[in-house]
Amino acid sequence: MAIVTLTTDFGDGSSYVAAMKGALLAVDGHANIIDLSHRLPPQDLLAAAYFLSDTLYCFPAGTIHVVVVDPGVGTERAILCVQWNDQIVLVPDNGCWTPIVRQNDAPPVVFRVEDQRYRRANVSATFHGRDIIAPAAGHLAIGVRPDQLGPRVSGWVRMMLPEASVTNWGAAGQVVIADPFGNLITNIPAELVSAGAAVTVGGQRVSRVVRTYGDAEPETIVALIGSSGRLEIAVVNGSAAVRLGLGVGTPVAVRRNG
Amino acid sequence: MAIVTLTTDFGDGSSYVAAMKGALLAVDGHANIIDLSHRLPPQDLLAAAYFLSDTLYCFPAGTIHVVVVDPGVGTERAILCVQWNDQIVLVPDNGCWTPIVRQNDAPPVVFRVEDQRYRRANVSATFHGRDIIAPAAGHLAIGVRPDQLGPRVSGWVRMMLPEASVTNWGAAGQVVIADPFGNLITNIPAELVSAGAAVTVGGQRVSRVVRTYGDAEPETIVALIGSSGRLEIAVVNGSAAVRLGLGVGTPVAVRRNG
Amino acid sequence: MAIVTLTTDFGDGSSYVAAMKGALLAVDGHANIIDLSHRLPPQDLLAAAYFLSDTLYCFPAGTIHVVVVDPGVGTERAILCVQWNDQIVLVPDNGCWTPIVRQNDAPPVVFRVEDQRYRRANVSATFHGRDIIAPAAGHLAIGVRPDQLGPRVSGWVRMMLPEASVTNWGAAGQVVIADPFGNLITNIPAELVSAGAAVTVGGQRVSRVVRTYGDAEPETIVALIGSSGRLEIAVVNGSAAVRLGLGVGTPVAVRRNG
Repeated sequence: MAIVTLTTDFGDGSSYVAAMKGALLAVDGHANIIDLSHRLPPQDLLAAAYFLSDTLYCFPAGTIHVVVVDPGVGTERAILCVQWNDQIVLVPDNGCWTPIVRQNDAPPVVFRVEDQRYRRANVSATFHGRDIIAPAAGHLAIGVRPDQLGPRVSGWVRMMLPEASVTNWGAAGQVVIADPFGNLITNIPAELVSAGAAVTVGGQRVSRVVRTYGDAEPETIVALIGSSGRLEIAVVNGSAAVRLGLGVGTPVAVRRNG
Repeated sequence: MAIVTLTTDFGDGSSYVAAMKGALLAVDGHANIIDLSHRLPPQDLLAAAYFLSDTLYCFPAGTIHVVVVDPGVGTERAILCVQWNDQIVLVPDNGCWTPIVRQNDAPPVVFRVEDQRYRRANVSATFHGRDIIAPAAGHLAIGVRPDQLGPRVSGWVRMMLPEASVTNWGAAGQVVIADPFGNLITNIPAELVSAGAAVTVGGQRVSRVVRTYGDAEPETIVALIGSSGRLEIAVVNGSAAVRLGLGVGTPVAVRRNG
Repeated sequence: MAIVTLTTDFGDGSSYVAAMKGALLAVDGHANIIDLSHRLPPQDLLAAAYFLSDTLYCFPAGTIHVVVVDPGVGTERAILCVQWNDQIVLVPDNGCWTPIVRQNDAPPVVFRVEDQRYRRANVSATFHGRDIIAPAAGHLAIGVRPDQLGPRVSGWVRMMLPEASVTNWGAAGQVVIADPFGNLITNIPAELVSAGAAVTVGGQRVSRVVRTYGDAEPETIVALIGSSGRLEIAVVNGSAAVRLGLGVGTPVAVRRNG
């Protein structure tokens, strides 16, 4: 029973997600379908990249990930089948998967999905998730090999995530995710943050770095290394996004001797 | 392992959905439960009909669909078990399933769900989804036959969807769905739309008909045949609903020689 | 194939839910994961308690419930494995599960989850759902016994739900849930409500008690015994929360001879 995850920007409860599930189960009625998210911001490849970075590493070898954030649907962009870290990602060729590959990973092996035997009989111009990607996932789930879906390719669209930089006083980065609790998650990795450093968000000094939420009273603004291994700004039992009125893109500075 | 889909207006994360899943798994612990949608507009049978029309045809033979949009709960309306197209639909007798039956389909075979052996011990007056429909689905999943749930019936509530009409200058219809991307999906089928025809929405001329989103620049208003096989009005990489300020019910005209 | 349910306040489509699913499937790739809710109000233990009360009793013996509403994450609070009613609940020690135990149930048997073999290699300070609870659920799903996760404990945090009281004129309670339909669900049990009693909400007399929604015309305000076995105030085919402008915490009175 293959695990097939679904990540889209189609919206919770959208008929598009339901149709994709049907198209997948029509090929493999035993697939263990796991919804990851259907509320990525529409056509936001950067948000998709962060979402994949924060989740795919948790899944076991053999998992098949279907990722449909596809601003280019209806253009000639390819659909890729990516073998990475013993998992498979099916995704339009838009680069959002490329940041999940880490420096120590074996290089991904990538195929272009194009064999007509592994898609629905009539392919629409606007819904390749249902007509090409979901059936391809079903076929992989029943044992079709990636190299049967189409030719191996050596080039694809690459995406770079905005990176934090080291400065002579500490590190500079930005808020890259506001999570549903209102935590502001940055792109500054733990190794650039010393305990007790001072954190400034949007020019406003907010906090010293603590180890965990429990180190401060409710309603305190804190900065800590979150579960993604990156700096985040939080309000204990509250919402930093609401309290500070800040969101994605806000500059963040970490000063060693604040 | 039977596939059992769930479609309701109970709201995402509602305890009603959770209770239904429990009641279903209490009968068949191996059911492969697939959430289709829990955010249909409350008690909106027309929205339910469009949702089912756009999704059920994708599922394989043998799928059991549980559909609970039930403005009549607590009245004497029956609960139906519909055999259609080698699939089964369990649904209150409110007509929302009837538009999925197409002219070329074999006629549906319909039973009234009433055998007390296939329901929870205590049936509440307000939650037949948990007490009757979910357990019936569980029993079907473990091999109970539809004709064991209750007597076959020959009459049921029927619903008509508003249909587009042919005019001497083209076709007239309306917006019937605004999807999560803000695409305005109409009831005008592809066969009434010629390439290059002019489309008017709410009296406002918006676009010529193109083949796909990729045929125009971002932010352009386009009209095209969507994945449902019907005309839709879209903004490339944007929201037509927001841009035009229009929604469900807006009249749409397609002029052959606009 | 073990059934593992997930209930959190992480938000629909949150990467935290996705990461937990991965961490669980990494231990048991065959788990039948059932989403109950991911939209409990953040860190609201009372809402979690009502949600569990209204849902867990529906599930079959052997079900494993993962419940992560965890205002204390990062403090020294324990994580518990609760054996109750032939089911298992994995939950931080915050009391939200205690109201599900009914007077006639066998007393729960409770273990503290602490064996390092059953968690992820690196445990973060802020995400025990992914690093401890989900892997523990996976291990239970493949046959690890609760007593292998850690020592049995005899003390834990207890939570009391606000209870309705009997008065000389009837019963007094409060609204404890506003459901997605806008029904206002109270903590007044059926046995304190006589047919035809008069119901007052927030000082405003709203209705007599009826048997079901179908006993009144659309748009009528009604009071009835809901599917939870408690009094609720509803608007037929409408929203009582919107119509009355009331929500959780509003006092409710039931007068026998109104």
